[in-house]
Amino acid sequence: MGRTLCKLAKNSLSESLSLPLVAGEFVFYTEFTVKKEEGVFSMADKIMEQALEILRHQRYYDSIQGLMGWDLWEGLSKKGQPYRGEVSGYFTRQALAELKSPETRKVVDALKERKPEDFEDIYLKGAAHELCQRYDRAVQVPEDLQVEVRNYTGQAQMVWRDALDKNSFEFYKPTIKGLFELKKRVAEAIDPNRPAFDVLCGTVDEGIDTQRVQQLFAGLKKGIVEIMEQIAPQHEKIDTGVLETPYTHQQRRDAAFEINLLTGFDPDCAHDSQVLHGMCTGVGPRDSRIAISYKGVWGGIFTMLHEGGHARYGYSSNDRAVECGLWGGLSGAMHEGQARFYENIIGKSPEFWRLAYPVAVKHFPYLKDVPMEKFYMAQMKVQPSLHRITADELTYSLHPIIRFEMEKDCFDGKTSTDDFEEIWREKYKETFGLVPKDAREGVLQDIHWASGHIGYFQSYTLGNLYGGQMLHAMKKVLPNFDELVEKGEFAPINQWLYDNVHQFGRAMTPTEVLLHATGEELTETYFLDYLRDKYLNKLRNI
Amino acid sequence: MGRTLCKLAKNSLSESLSLPLVAGEFVFYTEFTVKKEEGVFSMADKIMEQALEILRHQRYYDSIQGLMGWDLWEGLSKKGQPYRGEVSGYFTRQALAELKSPETRKVVDALKERKPEDFEDIYLKGAAHELCQRYDRAVQVPEDLQVEVRNYTGQAQMVWRDALDKNSFEFYKPTIKGLFELKKRVAEAIDPNRPAFDVLCGTVDEGIDTQRVQQLFAGLKKGIVEIMEQIAPQHEKIDTGVLETPYTHQQRRDAAFEINLLTGFDPDCAHDSQVLHGMCTGVGPRDSRIAISYKGVWGGIFTMLHEGGHARYGYSSNDRAVECGLWGGLSGAMHEGQARFYENIIGKSPEFWRLAYPVAVKHFPYLKDVPMEKFYMAQMKVQPSLHRITADELTYSLHPIIRFEMEKDCFDGKTSTDDFEEIWREKYKETFGLVPKDAREGVLQDIHWASGHIGYFQSYTLGNLYGGQMLHAMKKVLPNFDELVEKGEFAPINQWLYDNVHQFGRAMTPTEVLLHATGEELTETYFLDYLRDKYLNKLRNI
Repeated sequence: MGRTLCKLAKNSLSESLSLPLVAGEFVFYTEFTVKKEEGVFSMADKIMEQALEILRHQRYYDSIQGLMGWDLWEGLSKKGQPYRGEVSGYFTRQALAELKSPETRKVVDALKERKPEDFEDIYLKGAAHELCQRYDRAVQVPEDLQVEVRNYTGQAQMVWRDALDKNSFEFYKPTIKGLFELKKRVAEAIDPNRPAFDVLCGTVDEGIDTQRVQQLFAGLKKGIVEIMEQIAPQHEKIDTGVLETPYTHQQRRDAAFEINLLTGFDPDCAHDSQVLHGMCTGVGPRDSRIAISYKGVWGGIFTMLHEGGHARYGYSSNDRAVECGLWGGLSGAMHEGQARFYENIIGKSPEFWRLAYPVAVKHFPYLKDVPMEKFYMAQMKVQPSLHRITADELTYSLHPIIRFEMEKDCFDGKTSTDDFEEIWREKYKETFGLVPKDAREGVLQDIHWASGHIGYFQSYTLGNLYGGQMLHAMKKVLPNFDELVEKGEFAPINQWLYDNVHQFGRAMTPTEVLLHATGEELTETYFLDYLRDKYLNKLRNI
Repeated sequence: MGRTLCKLAKNSLSESLSLPLVAGEFVFYTEFTVKKEEGVFSMADKIMEQALEILRHQRYYDSIQGLMGWDLWEGLSKKGQPYRGEVSGYFTRQALAELKSPETRKVVDALKERKPEDFEDIYLKGAAHELCQRYDRAVQVPEDLQVEVRNYTGQAQMVWRDALDKNSFEFYKPTIKGLFELKKRVAEAIDPNRPAFDVLCGTVDEGIDTQRVQQLFAGLKKGIVEIMEQIAPQHEKIDTGVLETPYTHQQRRDAAFEINLLTGFDPDCAHDSQVLHGMCTGVGPRDSRIAISYKGVWGGIFTMLHEGGHARYGYSSNDRAVECGLWGGLSGAMHEGQARFYENIIGKSPEFWRLAYPVAVKHFPYLKDVPMEKFYMAQMKVQPSLHRITADELTYSLHPIIRFEMEKDCFDGKTSTDDFEEIWREKYKETFGLVPKDAREGVLQDIHWASGHIGYFQSYTLGNLYGGQMLHAMKKVLPNFDELVEKGEFAPINQWLYDNVHQFGRAMTPTEVLLHATGEELTETYFLDYLRDKYLNKLRNI
């Protein structure tokens, strides 16, 4: 005879301030306080105070949109979707209305006249930057164009699905052409004076220079291919049969959860879900949601570590960053870097598996007859392939590079989307010596372009470079890094990431954070060093 | 290697209109359209159009608060709560700001001058009523008083928990006195010219007349006690041992879910959760969430049917009710009536168990050696008790009556909260012949008063009366009701409830709906008839 929230949710609003939650027969009071928005200044800086208030409000809107996005997977039932569209649309417009208001404009104009040294600290400087950037984007891209993009990408994804069904790039051709043209118009609306592709990539990775990225990627590709050639004979021989076992969902989930906890992950900040796809969404400063993609029996472990890395970065902004509306971490490569650090650099190291293997054995008792080394090497097997998502750690980076190069050449006017199928085939042949047998195995494999994510792929591979560079810097103060991992002493590792990256949230740009954390600008050297040490040294001696 | 939402959630707002969701490596487009808010009129009625727009906006706020409330159980982690309080508080204030704005006031003033016959249909009349009522509540109760209530009830619940720990009503005395005084002030703020208790009950059950309720309850009590006396010898002999079995959570959940589906429940409108408490929350017009309290092995079945009834009422408002902002159903007794109809009138009938028993046997194979009748009678055993939540169907109604009588006498000035422990003991002795051995077993058993739910209990028992009266009316057109249930032909039953109650949402008042559906004002007669037929007739012949 459980009672319900229904009757309460329908009380008048004057009651809703004290709305308790009826759970079964028990009514729990939420004990939330409505925090007064006080200024965080000692000095009287009215403009900055207003800026922080506006930005905090924008983040509240981010939070409910984040929650609605998460709920789309976690709770929203099919027939609830159309109304949800109305709700989400209403709050998008409300947020934009506040952002584009004359009051915000006044604040933004005043902030733009300040010099960097006019700000009391990096957080106020960061908040001013964040607000101005949000404001600019809101006013730069006309609402008509936004609507056009939304409608076009909505349609394009359906065409993409049909093209997949038909296994036909031909069918997709006019649409992908339209997508690239439309995004070019968006880029020109944001900044007509910079190359469109740089502008688009810049909405994901702020301050990116795509020419420099191209150089980095060229060096990286060369290095990876060299490693691949050297290890091919060893890896061809690796037998992965040891990974095959019957399993239950509970078993693989519990193993993944427990192994992730070994890294000092704080489950009090991050709800983990058991829906069947991997994602992380930041709903608030101490509120990350991770959902795990359980591909086969073992995939969940690495997804949990990956999403756990995102979650950790998402929930570790310091209090000052939170009060300045800068929680959640930087988008793009920096976020990806944190995720891949835990997934790969830690989670795919032999040291970590010496630590974690007993947990795996506990959940999969058949492993007690399997030497850790055999299990580990089977997990690590390198194999050139046609498919990005399922690629191993070493070859993975090359897949996004192919897409990035295709996008850049196209925006640079060297190629046309019409030729993408053929270009794709050539690039896979050149990189991996493999040719997709059809469009489905090739150019149609990612939904990103259809959903408007053009200028996005580089962040996957850049994330690896960030990870390698952070590892290098970290090892200067933690030369016993490998030993710490093997012993499960993650506190100093997590603390380093917190001190140097996580705590700042969005206060600095990616370039500033990297420079602050590692003392250098981005290079491919350290990630390649890491790969060489791993594949040419460590894994050869196992 | 799942990708994440994090990086997307941090895109600029101008991007967020077309924000896709990255799930694993797949980006699904949500395909939401931002519905233009067009008027729903043929005639030019600017005021009404504005009213609908304001009301729809208020419902959007209801939706996100509902989602946040649901998420509190489903996803929000511990450390995410303080920020959630900020977010929730911000949107509460935003909703109130629009509701209390001069623009709304102008619309409300204009609507108040209209006569009932000035409205085109019941939905526009209902929308006008709903908006005026929300507006009035928002302006009637001063924000200071709202804050005082919120803070006091927050505190009071902690005192209540301590009092439970200490098993001491003495400890709770000053607090419960304060609670009743505070709620009296709220009632006076809403309407100084009506008895405070009527005003408070009226915020739950609109238009309630507590004197009339007292009469209904007196008649009901007398009738139930008579039945109890007559069936005591039979029920004392019922052996419930047959209900004892080992079980897994999955087993009981699957049985409950499948049995609920037998009643024609639409899972596409209602997400069911496996958290461990029973509740239903309406997040949108086609979006109800139910969570099930799994008390022991069998409780989940009845909770699922109960919450399913709430959900069904919540998601079955017709399109006109939705577009007029009137989705979700009426609060209080009417909602409870729908829940208890499915839980008890259907779910605890022998006909239903003839239908559902094979499903129970499928999930609990030991039952194949147990005759349905034996299982059913064990579930139905009537036993006077001291505890409301665990009471059987027959005696349940008496428990809320006791609390209602205590509240009413106190507000009428006949008693003081100081004497509540003693009054409680007397009333339980008089009603059930049982005396609680301590405060915990007695006056401290419900959290409702501490959370400010004073004037709330009547809706539980009134819900039973609504159910009985609906059954009576339904049987006039569906005389083969029992047979339909036994055959699992729920379409005509569900259709009757839809046609006569559910579809209207909040367009009419409870009194109007009941009159429309049953042709009569509320009476205890039909529910008593139902109980007599069940306990003195049907159950005697099993």
